[in-house]
Amino acid sequence: MSSVKADNIYDYVAQNAGLIASYIEGLASYGMQSGSGIVRPVYSPEWLAAHRQLEKWINEAGLSVRADAIGNLWGRLEGSEGGPVIASGSHLDTVKGGGKYDGGLGIIAALSAIRFLKDFYGPPRRTLEVVALCEEEGSRFNNTFLGSRAIIGTLPLDEVNNSRDPEGISVLEAARACGFRPEELTTVRRHDLGTFLELHIEQGRLLDDAGLQVGIVEAITGLQHLKVVFEGRADHAGTTPMDLRADSLVAAADVAIKTHHLAAALGRPAVATVGSLQVEPGARNIVPARVEITIDFRHSVEATRQLMAQQIRQICRDTGVSQGVTVQIEQHTDRLPAQMSPEVIELLQSCADQLGVSNMRMISGAGHDSQIMVERVPTAMLFVPSQAGRSHSAAEFTPLEQIIPGVAVLAQAMYKLAY
Amino acid sequence: MSSVKADNIYDYVAQNAGLIASYIEGLASYGMQSGSGIVRPVYSPEWLAAHRQLEKWINEAGLSVRADAIGNLWGRLEGSEGGPVIASGSHLDTVKGGGKYDGGLGIIAALSAIRFLKDFYGPPRRTLEVVALCEEEGSRFNNTFLGSRAIIGTLPLDEVNNSRDPEGISVLEAARACGFRPEELTTVRRHDLGTFLELHIEQGRLLDDAGLQVGIVEAITGLQHLKVVFEGRADHAGTTPMDLRADSLVAAADVAIKTHHLAAALGRPAVATVGSLQVEPGARNIVPARVEITIDFRHSVEATRQLMAQQIRQICRDTGVSQGVTVQIEQHTDRLPAQMSPEVIELLQSCADQLGVSNMRMISGAGHDSQIMVERVPTAMLFVPSQAGRSHSAAEFTPLEQIIPGVAVLAQAMYKLAY
Repeated sequence: MSSVKADNIYDYVAQNAGLIASYIEGLASYGMQSGSGIVRPVYSPEWLAAHRQLEKWINEAGLSVRADAIGNLWGRLEGSEGGPVIASGSHLDTVKGGGKYDGGLGIIAALSAIRFLKDFYGPPRRTLEVVALCEEEGSRFNNTFLGSRAIIGTLPLDEVNNSRDPEGISVLEAARACGFRPEELTTVRRHDLGTFLELHIEQGRLLDDAGLQVGIVEAITGLQHLKVVFEGRADHAGTTPMDLRADSLVAAADVAIKTHHLAAALGRPAVATVGSLQVEPGARNIVPARVEITIDFRHSVEATRQLMAQQIRQICRDTGVSQGVTVQIEQHTDRLPAQMSPEVIELLQSCADQLGVSNMRMISGAGHDSQIMVERVPTAMLFVPSQAGRSHSAAEFTPLEQIIPGVAVLAQAMYKLAY
Repeated sequence: MSSVKADNIYDYVAQNAGLIASYIEGLASYGMQSGSGIVRPVYSPEWLAAHRQLEKWINEAGLSVRADAIGNLWGRLEGSEGGPVIASGSHLDTVKGGGKYDGGLGIIAALSAIRFLKDFYGPPRRTLEVVALCEEEGSRFNNTFLGSRAIIGTLPLDEVNNSRDPEGISVLEAARACGFRPEELTTVRRHDLGTFLELHIEQGRLLDDAGLQVGIVEAITGLQHLKVVFEGRADHAGTTPMDLRADSLVAAADVAIKTHHLAAALGRPAVATVGSLQVEPGARNIVPARVEITIDFRHSVEATRQLMAQQIRQICRDTGVSQGVTVQIEQHTDRLPAQMSPEVIELLQSCADQLGVSNMRMISGAGHDSQIMVERVPTAMLFVPSQAGRSHSAAEFTPLEQIIPGVAVLAQAMYKLAY
């Protein structure tokens, strides 16, 4: 640690930022594929090795360490007065081919902040914990937020027993193989958390575009995922007049455009995306018989999200009628927006202002463990910029100087709560 | 053959239609896959077996038989006075999973017509020939109309030497392996053809819808095949506001719809089809970075085809600009419309009218060997109905009673030309 006297925690973080950099590079080595990002699915050998590395770092920082029954890893700095625990962290798993920052940075930020606070201010009154959460992304199982749901007690044992990865291995079996005791799921539940804070990269370009240092998240967007199938009729592209066709691609294209315009007309933070479109038979000279698309739409205000749901369904149905094709709509995900806790938002805001860290209030367009935690624990999130908004990609990048202000605000908030 | 006295050639064809039916079923057995149509690529064992079968039938009909150097199979009924030959036929190869009628029926119709004429009227003044043409569909090589181009002398030896199937076998090697002498390509050229007639299924539903017996083809449509690539930017579907996106799928969808509307607005026989669309990365929660589409558009009037080409290119460019994505257009096929020979059209018309066969003039929306033959030989085509317009599919079907009138008109036209 630096021997120059720091005036405040921001200075101290900046002086010791090399530690943060070494954590980032160290953690990134687990699951890194040459040139194509990180692959670190939950309970994989790479994930377990990263888990062990974190355990070492937590120990080195002078915190006590334990893994819970599902595999969340906790580091604890005991407070002198007890009372509700202030916890911070994020997820250790990555998407396939993800970057160094998504999830990992939130763990590193929390560990660094607690370590810096301990060094700078000594032991806290209240207990501070860092947590590495497991399976936020759905990196291996078709289930998200396993770790955070277990912590707040909303993960059914049934899901642990029955959810299986593509090779047929259940969460239970995979967690056991790592040495955890997932059958003791109820022991993961925490009733003593007073606050949860999560630092994360924005995964968007708003902070980078605005040149601001941190985003204070007011809400995590709600979303719905639809699969829509259009069935028309395969016809010879040369011999079938336009007026006799039932072209499923024309129908799907129409829905893609109208859905896009609907979200654009609603304005930020409404988004709607047709990300996948598959055509059958998909031949140059055959009128498409069947097209399957996905629609992902999001809004942080529930009433507007419902309105979008209604209007997008109407667009699909109307287009089916006008193009003479059948339309089937399947709903795959339906996630309510999550409002962060006003008092924790205010705390983060005042800490950022106090440290002179430029900031803006934001909506998170992506999902995060915080949306689970906030169901039981006062929670808020802090975003640091993502260069050019790159995310879920090897190109994900946030320079160290754009990480320091976020870690400083996080540390300051923990200080206010725990000292 | 029937022993009942027929009044005219139409009656004679109808009385002996069992022969046509047995030819159709016999030929269909070569390359038939259970439930999924016929696979009979040129120079394959199935194709060669069909070739040998046809040779037998031609012999049985009392015609002389020969295969030319590229593998077209000819059956010849010598005329007493010589002079230009009247030839008729179609292609023996099929698309992958094609039906029993596409191509094959044209060979069978010609062979049956010549056999019936010989039986009913005796030897002709002019020579009649039936021909089974090779590789019309591009069934194996990425080349179409090999047989007909060789006959009129527009197939370069270079193409025979260098065109290769997906396994790297050249046309030359494949043809040689069947016992032909493709190196003697120039011997295939015919300078003595006076008329070419091709009977074919419509491959569309216009005759079936109208309840008419034959179509007399005035022109074969011209077409252009484009590949268009849109490149935008992959972005997180949750965190990227609509106004900051460069969505390549929205651009491609817009082009698909505008192209569709352009052809619809021009009216028949204009057609335009986006048959294939591929999205990258194609994930539910990622804004599409790259989309590749094919555009197939056709018109039988060259000026209108050129106008379509111009307008479709303009639509692509304009959409690229408005959606902020780059657009690359590659032209893959550019085929001029082919006008059939007026005197042969008139002949078919008068024969149909004379026999009381209901008919209409048509444009062929699909390509045929006749568009090649007509470059050097007075040519016209006769369509018989395709049930529900099904084509290039195991579901392709024309009942025997809808084949008889077509064969009768073909025979009558040959009679007028050769007797």
